[in-house]
Amino acid sequence: MRTDQQPVRIALFAPDGRMGQAIRAAIAEDPAFELANDSGEVLVDFSAPDALRASLDRAVSAGVPLLIGTTGLIAEHDDLIAEAATAIPILKAPNTSLGVALLADLTARAARILGEDQWDIEIVEAHHKKKADAPSGTALHLGAAAEIGRGRILPEERGRDGTGLKRETGAIGYSAIRGGTVAGDHDVLFLGPDERLILSHRAENRSIFARGALVAARFLKGKPAGLYSMRDVIDAA
Amino acid sequence: MRTDQQPVRIALFAPDGRMGQAIRAAIAEDPAFELANDSGEVLVDFSAPDALRASLDRAVSAGVPLLIGTTGLIAEHDDLIAEAATAIPILKAPNTSLGVALLADLTARAARILGEDQWDIEIVEAHHKKKADAPSGTALHLGAAAEIGRGRILPEERGRDGTGLKRETGAIGYSAIRGGTVAGDHDVLFLGPDERLILSHRAENRSIFARGALVAARFLKGKPAGLYSMRDVIDAA
Amino acid sequence: MRTDQQPVRIALFAPDGRMGQAIRAAIAEDPAFELANDSGEVLVDFSAPDALRASLDRAVSAGVPLLIGTTGLIAEHDDLIAEAATAIPILKAPNTSLGVALLADLTARAARILGEDQWDIEIVEAHHKKKADAPSGTALHLGAAAEIGRGRILPEERGRDGTGLKRETGAIGYSAIRGGTVAGDHDVLFLGPDERLILSHRAENRSIFARGALVAARFLKGKPAGLYSMRDVIDAA
Amino acid sequence: MRTDQQPVRIALFAPDGRMGQAIRAAIAEDPAFELANDSGEVLVDFSAPDALRASLDRAVSAGVPLLIGTTGLIAEHDDLIAEAATAIPILKAPNTSLGVALLADLTARAARILGEDQWDIEIVEAHHKKKADAPSGTALHLGAAAEIGRGRILPEERGRDGTGLKRETGAIGYSAIRGGTVAGDHDVLFLGPDERLILSHRAENRSIFARGALVAARFLKGKPAGLYSMRDVIDAA
Repeated sequence: MRTDQQPVRIALFAPDGRMGQAIRAAIAEDPAFELANDSGEVLVDFSAPDALRASLDRAVSAGVPLLIGTTGLIAEHDDLIAEAATAIPILKAPNTSLGVALLADLTARAARILGEDQWDIEIVEAHHKKKADAPSGTALHLGAAAEIGRGRILPEERGRDGTGLKRETGAIGYSAIRGGTVAGDHDVLFLGPDERLILSHRAENRSIFARGALVAARFLKGKPAGLYSMRDVIDAA
Repeated sequence: MRTDQQPVRIALFAPDGRMGQAIRAAIAEDPAFELANDSGEVLVDFSAPDALRASLDRAVSAGVPLLIGTTGLIAEHDDLIAEAATAIPILKAPNTSLGVALLADLTARAARILGEDQWDIEIVEAHHKKKADAPSGTALHLGAAAEIGRGRILPEERGRDGTGLKRETGAIGYSAIRGGTVAGDHDVLFLGPDERLILSHRAENRSIFARGALVAARFLKGKPAGLYSMRDVIDAA
Repeated sequence: MRTDQQPVRIALFAPDGRMGQAIRAAIAEDPAFELANDSGEVLVDFSAPDALRASLDRAVSAGVPLLIGTTGLIAEHDDLIAEAATAIPILKAPNTSLGVALLADLTARAARILGEDQWDIEIVEAHHKKKADAPSGTALHLGAAAEIGRGRILPEERGRDGTGLKRETGAIGYSAIRGGTVAGDHDVLFLGPDERLILSHRAENRSIFARGALVAARFLKGKPAGLYSMRDVIDAA
Repeated sequence: MRTDQQPVRIALFAPDGRMGQAIRAAIAEDPAFELANDSGEVLVDFSAPDALRASLDRAVSAGVPLLIGTTGLIAEHDDLIAEAATAIPILKAPNTSLGVALLADLTARAARILGEDQWDIEIVEAHHKKKADAPSGTALHLGAAAEIGRGRILPEERGRDGTGLKRETGAIGYSAIRGGTVAGDHDVLFLGPDERLILSHRAENRSIFARGALVAARFLKGKPAGLYSMRDVIDAA
């Protein structure tokens, strides 16, 4: 139904990285997008924290929106991003899957309604055996969504092991499963008195992150300068 | 924390039915509620469709709010309820679990955002071996929530069996598992391209329906005349 | 660890079909196997029922073992297979995943131990939206495994829908979920008094069927004439 | 169908403990069992490690079989048990649910067949928020069953948290979820290349442990002296 529209022209900051390749493959499959040789209409950066300054400079110079999928950013990077966002629209997302963005949104809503004195939150994630960090960045992102819902920073309980343990009221527990070739499972459990609400996402493979990045890029095109998130993308859906 | 407040006085329309007994037990455990011998401050009816007219009359005469948990109501009953709701506040709920009410709310939100051309909805429920109807009333209620989100009545696919089947775009599929002593599991699956979002509720036993009814009764007390739903209860939480 | 061994030489009966291509890809990735231009050491047939006679003739003439992955075979085909199995080793498998073969084995064992008066069996499967038959052949294969365990043919309950239903003691219920891109989920539920045992398999993609076929082919090489199943493959593991 | 048989007479060593009360309730519901005021035909001990010597003495003196459900026993207790088992039949079980016993049996079988170079084992359990030890004794029991299947002691990975983690080949990972009123969920995950086998048990409430203890007691009655396990009970089923 978009055949009468011009494709969105996407420039890749790191076209040969793992995600750069995945996004190129996703662009090749979707006529609504086109790979740009210049700065295009949206610049997409899935590189590394050290390269962030260069991609910000490139986007600001060209006056094009920037999608930042890089993980491992710290507070100093956030300051650079905030400054650039006065000039161009920027969207920062540790996970560009639409399903995960929606899961975070639903998690915040559920956490707001289900009071912490009665409903305990546990976040369980599973990934392939080679994943080196635990909990996953996405699990922590979901925990942050729960905190937004509860309206306060919550204590964390990671890696339970031993005796004499006591679950703190309001805490978020994290569990990390590792093995095989699991692309990425995330469960947010609300465990209450005699009932449970469980919100889950299953990534069948990693192509969803590339496709979600393209949806986010289309969202960014034509937006006013400012800082956006995947939450804005799904609210606009 | 509500010890300084007066308990809400609950009158039961059918105090000896299965749910009547469960609610009496829940009242006995919670000092925030008290069983009334008169019409109380809220009247609760978990009886049968035939008795609806009598409970509406009693609530309107006494001028007290009415919680209707009766299932199997038809259009004619809805007319009676709408008329009475011009005089008193009425809340009708086929399932008074707070968790299920929230699940319905999240289902509507997810169905609105996840487009039907890409995301198929399936609703799977499991109940004990003696349950005689399939799908469960709660499964159909969740399907109705998805329709609200999608903004249209959706085709249903029930009881798939055979060859040469073709899933219709936008349809909601229903599956009913029966066996053992399962109190009630409900899963709403959004099955998309290479990813899945799954929203689940697990009832560990049936006491949650009685406790949810009490929360709904407290919500109703003091409300203006009108028709309410569990959605209003969770929005007020 | 098998680098000192000669690769098993596999001949494909229908090398350009969907599974033929998948098996060629799996052979290309695994130095323990080699594609044969002649009849090889094992012939693999994933074609169609009509072609079965031709592949049986070819295998018997060449005196090589035959792996039959074709689905939709009927009693007449079984007679042809039984006759050929007096001359060569033949393995027939509607599903060549090792995990599914093991799931069938565990299902039979659990069904033998968990008595039908107390434990109800339900089989739930999920597949992509284009799958045209329900329940899946693998779900029915798992049901047959449960029947072996219970020692009798069991009634089936498919596609529950309606009111006044009554679950028959000992029946196997089947549910089919369809949507998205699900490669294949199978759950065998044993629902008992206040407890449940659930045996599940998840196919992340379809490569597992090709790799399982290679393991079965290696098993067949050098076996005496006779009829084998994936159960024999896992018992030999 | 056992109405022509005499009920099995059960003596309780600690009749007023939590499990003692649960077993008395289970006996009251099942005409196949009767509470004995003397030493009965089977003595059941769900007390504490310190009391083990007394229950062993009582069973040996009376010459009746002993079921030991006590948890937290150490090697020294095992020596006492082994000695007494030369005189009477003794069954020791950290978990008397039949479903869990079968899950352990299936776990051992799957672990034997699914090689550790390709299939990673993870054990995930969930319990109510007040449970003070993690992983649960039953999770460790399932891990021991996997070790029997694999034929060696396996490294454990508990409480993953941090960066630069590396999953050891063959290790068993344990995750403990805590919250709400969960009676006891246990999942044994076999995570392989592009497929997963998951064996699960769900306790809906704690009555199953009492009923399983009665089944074990009936099994023990009339057995020769020796040491038995729940595995023997299910093998005899």
